[in-house]
Amino acid sequence: MTMCIAHYAIWDERADFLKKATAIAHGMTVGTWTELSATRKSEMEKHLGVVLDIAPLDETEYAIPNARGARVSIGYPTINFSADIPALLVTVFGKLSLDGNIRLLDITLSDAFLKQCPGAKYGIHGIRDRTGVHGRPLLMSIFKSVVGYDLQELREQFAQQAYGGVDLIKDDEILFENPLTPLEKRVAACQTVCEDMMRHHGHTVLYAANLTGKTSLLATNARRAIAAGASALLFNVFAYGLDALCELASDRSITVPLVAHPACSGAIVSSTQTGISPALLLGKLLRIAGADLVLFPSPYGSVTMPRSQTVSIAHELTTPSVHRPVFPVPSAGIHPGLVPALLKDFGGDIVINAGGGIHGHPNGTTAGAQAFRQAIDATVAGIPLHDAPYEHLQAALARWGTRT
Amino acid sequence: MTMCIAHYAIWDERADFLKKATAIAHGMTVGTWTELSATRKSEMEKHLGVVLDIAPLDETEYAIPNARGARVSIGYPTINFSADIPALLVTVFGKLSLDGNIRLLDITLSDAFLKQCPGAKYGIHGIRDRTGVHGRPLLMSIFKSVVGYDLQELREQFAQQAYGGVDLIKDDEILFENPLTPLEKRVAACQTVCEDMMRHHGHTVLYAANLTGKTSLLATNARRAIAAGASALLFNVFAYGLDALCELASDRSITVPLVAHPACSGAIVSSTQTGISPALLLGKLLRIAGADLVLFPSPYGSVTMPRSQTVSIAHELTTPSVHRPVFPVPSAGIHPGLVPALLKDFGGDIVINAGGGIHGHPNGTTAGAQAFRQAIDATVAGIPLHDAPYEHLQAALARWGTRT
Repeated sequence: MTMCIAHYAIWDERADFLKKATAIAHGMTVGTWTELSATRKSEMEKHLGVVLDIAPLDETEYAIPNARGARVSIGYPTINFSADIPALLVTVFGKLSLDGNIRLLDITLSDAFLKQCPGAKYGIHGIRDRTGVHGRPLLMSIFKSVVGYDLQELREQFAQQAYGGVDLIKDDEILFENPLTPLEKRVAACQTVCEDMMRHHGHTVLYAANLTGKTSLLATNARRAIAAGASALLFNVFAYGLDALCELASDRSITVPLVAHPACSGAIVSSTQTGISPALLLGKLLRIAGADLVLFPSPYGSVTMPRSQTVSIAHELTTPSVHRPVFPVPSAGIHPGLVPALLKDFGGDIVINAGGGIHGHPNGTTAGAQAFRQAIDATVAGIPLHDAPYEHLQAALARWGTRT
Repeated sequence: MTMCIAHYAIWDERADFLKKATAIAHGMTVGTWTELSATRKSEMEKHLGVVLDIAPLDETEYAIPNARGARVSIGYPTINFSADIPALLVTVFGKLSLDGNIRLLDITLSDAFLKQCPGAKYGIHGIRDRTGVHGRPLLMSIFKSVVGYDLQELREQFAQQAYGGVDLIKDDEILFENPLTPLEKRVAACQTVCEDMMRHHGHTVLYAANLTGKTSLLATNARRAIAAGASALLFNVFAYGLDALCELASDRSITVPLVAHPACSGAIVSSTQTGISPALLLGKLLRIAGADLVLFPSPYGSVTMPRSQTVSIAHELTTPSVHRPVFPVPSAGIHPGLVPALLKDFGGDIVINAGGGIHGHPNGTTAGAQAFRQAIDATVAGIPLHDAPYEHLQAALARWGTRT
């Protein structure tokens, strides 16, 4: 029997955890079990959820002071549900999500299930091929602010970033369809900068336009953006649903990398005793759903996530699997002085993503991007940042400091 | 300037809440503000988020012992985002959802935004017209267990419920497309029972078939179910996304009521210091997205939600608005002895929904449904349940007791 195995942390002051786990395994599959006849049991056994493991939480990262908890693993026969993410989530965490202090930590997916999920079209290798960047982390920048900007102002800000040598520029996730900078027009305007960069510097800049609108129009809007020149798409997947990402990733006419933004995911991952773990939601599930790059909070900035959680997300995105490895993009609070820490914590196959750490550079946006490229080059070459003879980098270090 | 106003609870031991709220209002709209020139400020002012209110949480229901918190209201100009729920959520709770202990309590929506949302096609009045039931709460029942059942077994269980006089029967939310009871075949099988009930008893029974599958196929699957005879559709909206519900509600070819199931919503609503309040997510947002009936945990069973939260959900579903009022369906742990409490807590315009409280009746499923109808009739007539001369009702009271 193939199963998907869900791993939960459950807290309860008095519960018999084996009894509770058994009630879940039976209740979320065949309903009542003990009162069935022997014949009926033998017919239904292939549908029955099974408790596979129960362990105290005491010495794990999930332990909560003074709270009694257990790590519970339950196997759900895949015969019970269709091979799509909504069916998986309803099966392992539907009604159960409402059952008090219970957190979904992980799901061990069967190969059969995994193979039905699209995974990334491009992933790390595909994006490295498209940008021609090998041997160093990529650099992504975020517009400083764009709400209320017209096309010319937007293009100017795009150019300032591009000229500094960034590899990807992404729309702000709060930039929706609007009369000043409608999707196709802003893509076309920024695309002229990308062409300039290629012609004069031989440097590829990808532009991830924000994919918005009604669910049923996402694929159409994606094709419109691509036809206008978008070379990537930013997608607020948690405002739509993981399956909407699966659909985009499965669509052969969508021929650019998909950048998954974690907007709204804090509502699910930020609690400690409810919701879903970041490694599962932002890591494993986004990867199987088809994200090529995944943004998540870095452990350095003011919007922080503990280092262990961010490292777990990156691990899920890159560990060997039936799907392509995809780029971890630890974001928020990133400045050039953090580049060595980023490489130490996440390795070299990442995208370094900055907003304020580029635009806030004392010498301006272009210098800010250059400072990052210099920090990346120095770190990859094994040169301590303070010893790297680059003016813009040193100005950035003077502004923001370093972290080792 | 029209605005949507988001209301948050924020906890922070040291923060200056006005400063923090201002940073949110600016950061989630125009980005930097104070350093702009006077000319630029006058151009950008219509896009600027505004702090409208800050109050201590001390004496509210959101107060947490020993935690310092504030209720913060921020206005977001509607000019900044398109009139759809994903754009709304990303605007008011995108990045912000990841910003520590912050919970989205409510959103005051502009009329312009509300009018772009579909709301229910049928709602309370439309469903009362379809069932011909006026002057009493409706009764809904849930299959006991169906995973692993074949068509004949499923039809038999459906019939046992229908014969007891229930008004709606819903699929189990964990019943997905499967070879034993595929969508169109199970709808057709159960529909023959509905026709029997109409022919012999003049009683309408609606069947809410579980709408599953890939996001892009939901509308097609809905039409298939309706063509086969489904008179309602159950939808695991939080496994897909609120906008997927908007699409179904906006689709004129989907001509049956939509029953929203709260599966997976616990991952968002169950924490106290993060996520989204149940009144907003399961109440206001499901109503504007177009649910005709909304299931949520009752305050009586083992999967409980505090009474005040459940009453707030029901209030959001029924309070006067530009959209039709829709049916609150407090669910889980419901037995006939709770009918007076249900009417006292939620009023008469509800759907009473039971599973174990019907199938677990000492005289069987049909008697269990009859006991509920008897409890409803007695309560509406002002007769105390223990004084009502109905055998099945008295057996139910002996089994489960009452609650006043």
